[in-house]
Amino acid sequence: MAKIAMLGSGFIGRFYADSLIGQRSRDTIVSIYSRREESAKKFAVDYNCSHWTTNMEEAINHPDVDMVCISLPNNLHEAAVMACCKAKKAVMCTKPLGRNAEEAKRMMEAVEKAGIFNGYLEDLCYTPKFLKALKSVQEGALGRILWAKSRETHPGPHSEWFWDKEQAGGGCILDLGCHCVEIARNFIGKDIKPVEVMCWADTQVKPIDAEDHAIGLVKYENGAIGQFEVSWTFRGGLDLRDEVMGSEGTIWLNSFLRTGFDMFTTGKGADYVAEKAESNTGWLFPVGDELNELGYNHMFADMFNAVEAGKAPRETFYDGYVVNAVLDAAYRSAKSKLWEPVKLDIWRGKEGLAKEKTLTDYNEQYYLIKEEMTHFGTAKLILKDKKTGQIIEKVV
Amino acid sequence: MAKIAMLGSGFIGRFYADSLIGQRSRDTIVSIYSRREESAKKFAVDYNCSHWTTNMEEAINHPDVDMVCISLPNNLHEAAVMACCKAKKAVMCTKPLGRNAEEAKRMMEAVEKAGIFNGYLEDLCYTPKFLKALKSVQEGALGRILWAKSRETHPGPHSEWFWDKEQAGGGCILDLGCHCVEIARNFIGKDIKPVEVMCWADTQVKPIDAEDHAIGLVKYENGAIGQFEVSWTFRGGLDLRDEVMGSEGTIWLNSFLRTGFDMFTTGKGADYVAEKAESNTGWLFPVGDELNELGYNHMFADMFNAVEAGKAPRETFYDGYVVNAVLDAAYRSAKSKLWEPVKLDIWRGKEGLAKEKTLTDYNEQYYLIKEEMTHFGTAKLILKDKKTGQIIEKVV
Amino acid sequence: MAKIAMLGSGFIGRFYADSLIGQRSRDTIVSIYSRREESAKKFAVDYNCSHWTTNMEEAINHPDVDMVCISLPNNLHEAAVMACCKAKKAVMCTKPLGRNAEEAKRMMEAVEKAGIFNGYLEDLCYTPKFLKALKSVQEGALGRILWAKSRETHPGPHSEWFWDKEQAGGGCILDLGCHCVEIARNFIGKDIKPVEVMCWADTQVKPIDAEDHAIGLVKYENGAIGQFEVSWTFRGGLDLRDEVMGSEGTIWLNSFLRTGFDMFTTGKGADYVAEKAESNTGWLFPVGDELNELGYNHMFADMFNAVEAGKAPRETFYDGYVVNAVLDAAYRSAKSKLWEPVKLDIWRGKEGLAKEKTLTDYNEQYYLIKEEMTHFGTAKLILKDKKTGQIIEKVV
Amino acid sequence: MAKIAMLGSGFIGRFYADSLIGQRSRDTIVSIYSRREESAKKFAVDYNCSHWTTNMEEAINHPDVDMVCISLPNNLHEAAVMACCKAKKAVMCTKPLGRNAEEAKRMMEAVEKAGIFNGYLEDLCYTPKFLKALKSVQEGALGRILWAKSRETHPGPHSEWFWDKEQAGGGCILDLGCHCVEIARNFIGKDIKPVEVMCWADTQVKPIDAEDHAIGLVKYENGAIGQFEVSWTFRGGLDLRDEVMGSEGTIWLNSFLRTGFDMFTTGKGADYVAEKAESNTGWLFPVGDELNELGYNHMFADMFNAVEAGKAPRETFYDGYVVNAVLDAAYRSAKSKLWEPVKLDIWRGKEGLAKEKTLTDYNEQYYLIKEEMTHFGTAKLILKDKKTGQIIEKVV
Repeated sequence: MAKIAMLGSGFIGRFYADSLIGQRSRDTIVSIYSRREESAKKFAVDYNCSHWTTNMEEAINHPDVDMVCISLPNNLHEAAVMACCKAKKAVMCTKPLGRNAEEAKRMMEAVEKAGIFNGYLEDLCYTPKFLKALKSVQEGALGRILWAKSRETHPGPHSEWFWDKEQAGGGCILDLGCHCVEIARNFIGKDIKPVEVMCWADTQVKPIDAEDHAIGLVKYENGAIGQFEVSWTFRGGLDLRDEVMGSEGTIWLNSFLRTGFDMFTTGKGADYVAEKAESNTGWLFPVGDELNELGYNHMFADMFNAVEAGKAPRETFYDGYVVNAVLDAAYRSAKSKLWEPVKLDIWRGKEGLAKEKTLTDYNEQYYLIKEEMTHFGTAKLILKDKKTGQIIEKVV
Repeated sequence: MAKIAMLGSGFIGRFYADSLIGQRSRDTIVSIYSRREESAKKFAVDYNCSHWTTNMEEAINHPDVDMVCISLPNNLHEAAVMACCKAKKAVMCTKPLGRNAEEAKRMMEAVEKAGIFNGYLEDLCYTPKFLKALKSVQEGALGRILWAKSRETHPGPHSEWFWDKEQAGGGCILDLGCHCVEIARNFIGKDIKPVEVMCWADTQVKPIDAEDHAIGLVKYENGAIGQFEVSWTFRGGLDLRDEVMGSEGTIWLNSFLRTGFDMFTTGKGADYVAEKAESNTGWLFPVGDELNELGYNHMFADMFNAVEAGKAPRETFYDGYVVNAVLDAAYRSAKSKLWEPVKLDIWRGKEGLAKEKTLTDYNEQYYLIKEEMTHFGTAKLILKDKKTGQIIEKVV
Repeated sequence: MAKIAMLGSGFIGRFYADSLIGQRSRDTIVSIYSRREESAKKFAVDYNCSHWTTNMEEAINHPDVDMVCISLPNNLHEAAVMACCKAKKAVMCTKPLGRNAEEAKRMMEAVEKAGIFNGYLEDLCYTPKFLKALKSVQEGALGRILWAKSRETHPGPHSEWFWDKEQAGGGCILDLGCHCVEIARNFIGKDIKPVEVMCWADTQVKPIDAEDHAIGLVKYENGAIGQFEVSWTFRGGLDLRDEVMGSEGTIWLNSFLRTGFDMFTTGKGADYVAEKAESNTGWLFPVGDELNELGYNHMFADMFNAVEAGKAPRETFYDGYVVNAVLDAAYRSAKSKLWEPVKLDIWRGKEGLAKEKTLTDYNEQYYLIKEEMTHFGTAKLILKDKKTGQIIEKVV
Repeated sequence: MAKIAMLGSGFIGRFYADSLIGQRSRDTIVSIYSRREESAKKFAVDYNCSHWTTNMEEAINHPDVDMVCISLPNNLHEAAVMACCKAKKAVMCTKPLGRNAEEAKRMMEAVEKAGIFNGYLEDLCYTPKFLKALKSVQEGALGRILWAKSRETHPGPHSEWFWDKEQAGGGCILDLGCHCVEIARNFIGKDIKPVEVMCWADTQVKPIDAEDHAIGLVKYENGAIGQFEVSWTFRGGLDLRDEVMGSEGTIWLNSFLRTGFDMFTTGKGADYVAEKAESNTGWLFPVGDELNELGYNHMFADMFNAVEAGKAPRETFYDGYVVNAVLDAAYRSAKSKLWEPVKLDIWRGKEGLAKEKTLTDYNEQYYLIKEEMTHFGTAKLILKDKKTGQIIEKVV
């Protein structure tokens, strides 16, 4: 039964609150901090918070509060985390953790030194589809993972601070890439070290300093590849898709635009307003239950269950730090046009992995390249001689 | 904060329990009744119930219990409901309410006379997709509703009692049609009277007495049509789809087999077991979060919120009674091969509606039949003379 | 190398012509007949016809013509067919063949008596998807066919004569149902006799005398069920879907609105005009190659190949007659509200089939009802005692 | 009316032949050359060729032949092209044109010097979906093109020579990337110069020397990005998808695995054999008409129509050369880990383009960043001050 101080009353803070106190939750938001008094008051009314303030420390230090949820602009995360460390309150921080790995590392080291619970609010690693897909991957349904791609593109964020490089720390790479990198990292294995990154980024459409479109490849020590595709220039809504290739299988997830809900409307039915769509007539693709589909419910359940059990949640500040380190390499690569190493002063997974490779024996003389059905319904093999390297066909 | 007695520890009871005490719920199951001691004990351990019993009344009358959840075979609903009435405990009953309208009506009258809370656990009228679609329909996004179809087909139920006509009261019409009828009724309007039913039913595949495949049309007083397609002979998993046609729009919902989660596996990754699928290799279509997608979470939230607010939930015993009356007509029709009237001794909606009809004026002389774009990019009208009835084309 | 006279220069005639002389075809349209001179001339220019006329017989009797293609309004089919019989020219007729079975029967008997080639232009029984699906069904991939549904709905036809009951012979049942009935009949088996029909029909939206929405069930002698869903009131484009259930499998075909081509446009790119869609902005779902997807290419190839080989094509006037007989029963049923018998004076398929039923033996004592995986990964059987009828569960 | 010599009787030669003489084509294959007599003879019988030979020049020089179709392994293209030049016969060559740009350039220069018709058989730039999508793009439906991705992955090619680096010239980059590069180039504009390439490639699964998985980015002079994703390690069938992002719209094409044809079969229906799938039970996703869906019909129609009209086809040897130059850069990049320049000695498009950038004015003081609907249904603007760079929100 968590008693929460919410820091930040904007779009994401309200989204979190909807989930936190949603359905039959036993958890409550007892204090809300916002920089603007009006906004704090309104939030307090809407979410039934007994206390509101424009003084961040006051919210954190409120005696009823046992857990702090940071949903502030990126440039304010560090100060909020430090205040939680001082107050020894459990802390959850929205994504990305820092504007860069340096900030993230300082936050991680501070919470660990303070010995407080720390959760990284990477909601897209908690969507029901993702959790089930990850379980299948971990049980071996896809064999060895070769590649994991995550794509998040939409027509741009809701609040002005995202578009300001100083406050946000970057553009769509930081805003959206943080999701994509952690999704791919989960599928490939959190204990596998990301070693280098190649990234293209550009400002193709928007009148801003930061990038509005980027594509990156993240190479892992075992030879697997993570890929991210992020943009603020996409037209058509919120495109949220993951793909995983393994030696024995494939997974495709579509988390927003094609989830089995198609609606057409001429718009002549008066009051209808479509959510999150670029228009409110024609074919629309709503999502049934956004809070659940986007992972918020499962994320906060994990956070609170972990706190109560005295364990770490699935996603911690350490994960946030690794993500920031990968994104830093992406930003360097976008400039240098080189594969840039991921700089991880602190690494807690496996070390020194060689690239995995599976040669499938057919018999003593041959490796099996491929087995297939011919048009005639008989099996055909393509084999490679182990010694000569010669490749032959064999009908069996 | 509900304290629940669960009656029945089978497949559906466990599904309910997973939802009831899932995530961060503040509600608890305090007592479990099962006909078999072993089953009651196991359930009590799994769901942390302080009390178990093989005596139904003991569970209901347990002093900690303030709400009863019936998840028993159909032939046992009535006795359980009567015991709740006697104990004046709030009651929720799984679907269908009765094996026929007579049973359902007795239950409805008993709870109303006893003055106890009564909830009808029609989960598919609580799925997130359904709730959002219904809201769009109610706001007018589809204009006037013309037709609402719901389809539920799969390879047959899990427990033996479903296959026994005496215990179940029927076959797939009762088991699955109860969902479909109430879904269509919601879209068309709960205050619109269902007047007659035409139904085809047959036992095409299974060695049973009850029907394993049926299709029905339900005519409403305002001329709208509900349609149900139900079967226990479908191959490929659980097919759960709704379609709605309105004068200004269309809705298509797919709640199970195509929800944006595609997986292929060769099955060589050892331990993997697919859920609810007919095989565990090849292309599979899992659902992210079954409890949420199938409506259990939103259903129980509505139930408990309603109890606490002293209001009726979205779905009550009255709704269960109306559904049973429609299904009774379907069974009669399947035998008589006639459109059979829906016999509703008790009707609480609108009466005496005429068939709706909208004639769109083009001008004083003509009605507008259709407006379309020609290949040449100009608009073409098809018009009908109000007096002569002559139909003409007019390029504008 | 067919030399064709085209009768009719409207929407469907032009569609046919696009296919007939499309790609690298060796066939040509040598004569065009239209009721309006202007229209005949324009068609002749567009499709490079050496001869045009407003006299139907002149086109048919033209010495270069060896094959006639009828694409006239329904009320003019019979006269055109009779003229072909007189001229002993091979004839292909658009769908439906007649306005009712009586007309269709007269046409069928006339061509057979005249001994001329006769082809029924049922394009939707020639779409590539349909042909491949049918082949799978015929090879047994779905086991015994239980149910075949075909749905065609859109916002209404292009030309004024369709909306006039006298010229068209009916509304959407005749216009669209002819496709659906023949599609289902193919899947179930053309040699299986359709015996009775139940149909609901109504004029829900349009200011016309004919029906604009209908749903029908067609019972076949072996117990299989065909289903049609047709409407001129659908919003969102052209909905063209088939579904087949067999004892061992399932087929779902989507031939228009969801074929793997999704496009979103804000509409600010100036000149773009969407085809066949209800709007030209937002999400649109074009079809790659309409002539091929809708079956025209495969249909005419079959027709010409059949003529050249001296064989009957896949779809003949006899098929058109059977379809009309089914639709007549549908119209009668919509009025009488009864299952109406299909009146087939002429029937060339199997007779006296009993309803098929498969009882699967488990062992001497039991029938197998169902086999399934439990959550624990073990197989569970549901069995029925052959003598007592008792139903039990057995874990194996 | 083309008279064709086919060089090569393997998988692709037969595929071509099925299309060339398919449906009602007026074209014929008069001579077949194969390296193996048995194979030549069989092909001649199957496709009704009057002449067969194991001497390539004999086929080319055959007096009836006016056009040559090269469907040989990659290492034999050049010799075949040179023989056509010598014989002054029109030539079409399968993809990729050369094993590298050097070979391709020699072929291009030879055909141009000889003055013969030359067609590049890039079938995936002729699929019906691609052609219609390209038309929409060219008409401006997507605004300015920002990014075009093409993905082709499957479990590996059918014939042994593909797996041999010497004969094939490379692995999946050459085999599949040639399609993807030309698809993206068409969407971005064939007159826009590809300037540099970044590519990751690896041999992750197969026991071969060439790459079996690669991802590449192609930067164009105007700032647009092409992307290819190719693999011989994909599980689940043939994944063939394109995506295009423009400033005003989006296109998604799925050409194989999800085209509106879903089939489930238990496999108990005896004789059924699935095509091109990895299994023949469970959920399968056939394609209706492979020859048409994969572009063969439209490709050959364009080739023959162009020959007859004395014009160049849509895809020429020059295009094949540009593609090879891009792929060469990809191979260099995979080794050097650098963005590698595309070396085009011959370039016939635009030169010296600057990166396009559109700044949308809101008024004199501000640029418009984004316009969106708030939850309250009012419009919100995000604006940037032209002078100060400050970003603000404005509710209108």
